[in-house]
Amino acid sequence: MTKLKELQAYLKQEKLDAAFITTPDNVFYFSGFASNPHERLLGIMAFQDAEPFLICPQMEVPDAIAAGWSFEAVGHVDTENAWDVVAKAVSSRGIVPTSLAIEKAHLTVERLEELVARYPDVQVERLDDQIHAMRVIKSETELEKMRKAAELADYAIQVGCDAIEVGKTEMDVLNEIESAIKAKGYAMSFETMVLAGEKSASPHGVPGNRKIQHGDMVLFDLGVLYEGYCSDITRTVAVGEASEAQKHIYDTVRRANEAAINAVKPGILARELDKIARDVITEAGYGDYFTHRLGHGLGISVHEFPSINGANDWPLTTGTVFTIEPGVYKADVAGVRIEDDVVVTKEGVEVLTKFTKDLVIIK
Amino acid sequence: MTKLKELQAYLKQEKLDAAFITTPDNVFYFSGFASNPHERLLGIMAFQDAEPFLICPQMEVPDAIAAGWSFEAVGHVDTENAWDVVAKAVSSRGIVPTSLAIEKAHLTVERLEELVARYPDVQVERLDDQIHAMRVIKSETELEKMRKAAELADYAIQVGCDAIEVGKTEMDVLNEIESAIKAKGYAMSFETMVLAGEKSASPHGVPGNRKIQHGDMVLFDLGVLYEGYCSDITRTVAVGEASEAQKHIYDTVRRANEAAINAVKPGILARELDKIARDVITEAGYGDYFTHRLGHGLGISVHEFPSINGANDWPLTTGTVFTIEPGVYKADVAGVRIEDDVVVTKEGVEVLTKFTKDLVIIK
Repeated sequence: MTKLKELQAYLKQEKLDAAFITTPDNVFYFSGFASNPHERLLGIMAFQDAEPFLICPQMEVPDAIAAGWSFEAVGHVDTENAWDVVAKAVSSRGIVPTSLAIEKAHLTVERLEELVARYPDVQVERLDDQIHAMRVIKSETELEKMRKAAELADYAIQVGCDAIEVGKTEMDVLNEIESAIKAKGYAMSFETMVLAGEKSASPHGVPGNRKIQHGDMVLFDLGVLYEGYCSDITRTVAVGEASEAQKHIYDTVRRANEAAINAVKPGILARELDKIARDVITEAGYGDYFTHRLGHGLGISVHEFPSINGANDWPLTTGTVFTIEPGVYKADVAGVRIEDDVVVTKEGVEVLTKFTKDLVIIK
Repeated sequence: MTKLKELQAYLKQEKLDAAFITTPDNVFYFSGFASNPHERLLGIMAFQDAEPFLICPQMEVPDAIAAGWSFEAVGHVDTENAWDVVAKAVSSRGIVPTSLAIEKAHLTVERLEELVARYPDVQVERLDDQIHAMRVIKSETELEKMRKAAELADYAIQVGCDAIEVGKTEMDVLNEIESAIKAKGYAMSFETMVLAGEKSASPHGVPGNRKIQHGDMVLFDLGVLYEGYCSDITRTVAVGEASEAQKHIYDTVRRANEAAINAVKPGILARELDKIARDVITEAGYGDYFTHRLGHGLGISVHEFPSINGANDWPLTTGTVFTIEPGVYKADVAGVRIEDDVVVTKEGVEVLTKFTKDLVIIK
């Protein structure tokens, strides 16, 4: 629970009476307890010195303790007001907060109203940036989990390549990938994408009954969860053969991906990386077809801080993990995206995903 | 888009200048456009008379139009402030809202601050209850989709029963279920649960490598998505044989499920149904082992309004779909939950899930 101690030190430094953490991923980060509470209240209330507490549905209290939460775990049931339960736990510590840090990008207006109704004079402050600053630097323990998650993602891409056959649908292939990962006892970190032919050119397309044909390019975008940490990889392969136009797009995207990876080092700005990849694509004449940012932070969440986009001045530092995923989407030729997970190291960069970036042509 | 017209009529009646809808499920309800925007802004801004607009990531604009959105679709890219884009679309209609209805249970504090920064004098009102009131009554078109979703859930339970074998793991069985649904071209509506033996007694347990043994009870909790609408079913079956203690729990839960179903009629309160089921379980001596509410509303969301719990005075009316899912969790005997999806009809009730509730013993 050293992360909680770091948070408590922050509260002291900023003279904040309490912090209330409600994002499930942040609750996991501070407690080791992974839970999807749906509409029910889940949170950690931390103080400068007093014992923190976890508030969660009553039936999950044993799970929280089993996950390693060693402070008070306060349960609530559907027939009581969870905010009254929170207020009681706070006042049992002799505390009436006059300042409270919340996750403004997560806490809803309704929930803030519930809190403010109980502490009408409380000053509400933003906790988000402090948590970003903590989560953005991965410890060696976290990196070990992310390496494992990436290894499983590489494996999933191989399963996908092996599964491709002319006449099979996107869903058939997706199914084989997810079965193989489940058979190993793991879960995907987000909804797997297998997109064939013209569908590969839709960056947020939905896999369906499109049959794979000779000459298609097939785009895989997938990730695996390992002990609470995500991977996220994209590879695009050709079926039977690749046309010159497809090869040209593929080569351009690969060069953009590698140019950005080679530029990663402590201190480089997110927007500089985006520009390096974008310039390669623009120079090849596909600038209008790279319609999204270069990447995003990765860790407990699939998309987390920082965003690797052309407007973000954030300097990347040692221990930050993020994706590099340039793409070119031309429906009449192919959509190609190549995505790797990388971590900034003292020396420059470590690439976690290792599946080949040579153009794979499935025979 | 008759639902949008109904919302516009509400704005007129309540003298509200605008409504901003940001829950992805509500955006789908009003637009037919299903999207998971992750951290990006997705929303519908509606006015009393002016043309509503959809704000979404630029690359999803074509998807929104393809899904049937027939009004203005405003795209935003990662390098611009999405709230400036919203403000521009509002002012292009010659509107400066002095009152604005938001989903207080969804909109974050940060997002409200972005809006209020642009309209400092705006009065912020709660839209949640109006949307609940609309969504809680399913149209015949919606009910048709939910019947199909329930039929697929029944099928998934049958696949699960057929897959059970001593020595297989929970994940093996889960895998066969999900493969069968994917092979039909559908997706699950939430993470499938297959829990064996003592694990069946954990209402929010996570399937893993627990092997199925003779004498176990196995609990399935799953649902399938059909054209945007969810089903949610639970069945518990015995492997090889069922002990008298297991049979007694099963019979109690079944009687609780059926007592509540038989009591469903227009006007009955949510808490009355909860009590009817709970009384059956309490009288059988298992009151302390039924640790959750009776059920929840069901539709576009797996958990939606209304909550069927002992403190909810909401009167159920014709067209409302919800789950009835009593359970008894005794780790030394078994966890048993039996869950059906029901709709309130003029005559009383229609049960959408039809898989048998006789105790299935897998030989």
